[in-house]
Amino acid sequence: MLSKRPFILLVNDDGILASGLKFLATILKEDADVLVIAPDKEQSGKSHAISVDQKVKVKKVKELKGYAEYTCSGTPADCVKIAIHEILTKKPDLCVSGINHGANFSISTLYSGTLHAAMEGTIQGVPSISISHENYSHNIDFSGYNNFIKNIVNHILNVGLKGGVTLNINIPNIPYSKIKGIKLCNQGQGNWEEEYKKKGNFYYWLTGNFISFDNSKSSDIWAIKNNFISIVPVKTDMTDYKYLEEIKDLNIDV
Amino acid sequence: MLSKRPFILLVNDDGILASGLKFLATILKEDADVLVIAPDKEQSGKSHAISVDQKVKVKKVKELKGYAEYTCSGTPADCVKIAIHEILTKKPDLCVSGINHGANFSISTLYSGTLHAAMEGTIQGVPSISISHENYSHNIDFSGYNNFIKNIVNHILNVGLKGGVTLNINIPNIPYSKIKGIKLCNQGQGNWEEEYKKKGNFYYWLTGNFISFDNSKSSDIWAIKNNFISIVPVKTDMTDYKYLEEIKDLNIDV
Repeated sequence: MLSKRPFILLVNDDGILASGLKFLATILKEDADVLVIAPDKEQSGKSHAISVDQKVKVKKVKELKGYAEYTCSGTPADCVKIAIHEILTKKPDLCVSGINHGANFSISTLYSGTLHAAMEGTIQGVPSISISHENYSHNIDFSGYNNFIKNIVNHILNVGLKGGVTLNINIPNIPYSKIKGIKLCNQGQGNWEEEYKKKGNFYYWLTGNFISFDNSKSSDIWAIKNNFISIVPVKTDMTDYKYLEEIKDLNIDV
Repeated sequence: MLSKRPFILLVNDDGILASGLKFLATILKEDADVLVIAPDKEQSGKSHAISVDQKVKVKKVKELKGYAEYTCSGTPADCVKIAIHEILTKKPDLCVSGINHGANFSISTLYSGTLHAAMEGTIQGVPSISISHENYSHNIDFSGYNNFIKNIVNHILNVGLKGGVTLNINIPNIPYSKIKGIKLCNQGQGNWEEEYKKKGNFYYWLTGNFISFDNSKSSDIWAIKNNFISIVPVKTDMTDYKYLEEIKDLNIDV
């Protein structure tokens, strides 16, 4: 058991008005002090982008005992950097990002602003998790996930996470009662089969469908398709160590 | 030897006017057909961000035999997606991103728009490399790197790259004559010691200095500091497989 009330930094990429963020704020503040910092507009697909050579606006929009909300004009990763460096006087015990409206598994691991907000927490030395739901609707009832989220939050608060690792959690788009359990997974191999809709002579609008190249039962793709909540430990070190060994003999002149 | 003139997609994050891009275009088009697509404004620090739910403007600004230039209003990763899906009728043999004005090693691997433009090429099935120079100046003389760049480009065109892997190449900020050689490395452990300059009541401006936590000679940090060009194979699969094995017993109720 924790000896004091924990302190949680809560962030997302869908923006301060998103219902997934509000749900997390509501349940987390029951047992913890919570500081929310969220983009002042939707910032989906922003990956690990940060604002370089431009100013970022931060505003406090709510303050109660043990609870505050801020908006930020920057990216999800900006939100976490500014909270830790400028707003907070002590490091949070945990950073939670989400609940994202839309899944962030397989190749979307690279594009997700939700996951990379949490990864920025990891970079800043804070145990961090990202939670996404496969359903894009803001009207979804998240209340069934109350216990699961409290359990995973308490688990990380108690045992911590390896440095440099973030948990990427995805919930499948099925009623809570149909969830079969939790699977620890690897990032599955898949991609977006993309098309652009052309608008006039010069403008393009991205659309696409996800396709899986992965038949393994160990992947997040399999878990989500088979009604499990997927948890993938992702790391900030992107080196392919195996390939590094293989290409050690690269023979190129300077 | 290649039997036909290769076709190279060239991109960057500093924008269409950057001298690093112009240098690469000049030397690559000597031996290959080249299509350049670059942001119409600087897009540093944009990581793997893509434009979701917003239109992107693309304009052809130059066309010669075997050479064309386009500008794009989106992110570096948008540039590559749009080129491959909408502009090109065949996949390029290679995607080159850079030369970035500023280094992209260690933790900057996550923030770099230059590297992630190349990684988008990798996702699209094209062998892809990213080249960054530690000097931020646009007046730097890149001509000493002519042979190195042609050698690495020809090497990849001839032997290819493992699927899912991008080469992250960094050149130290020293005169070309002082370069000691090339090191294949892992991504070193370091971080930005960040500060924000406060502008008025609500605005923040990011500044910072890089600090290394890494004493190993195998890292890109060591290579750059010791006058080597660093090459790190980075992968799109961000799973921490070792930690995944360790935490297999995570015992949480749904």
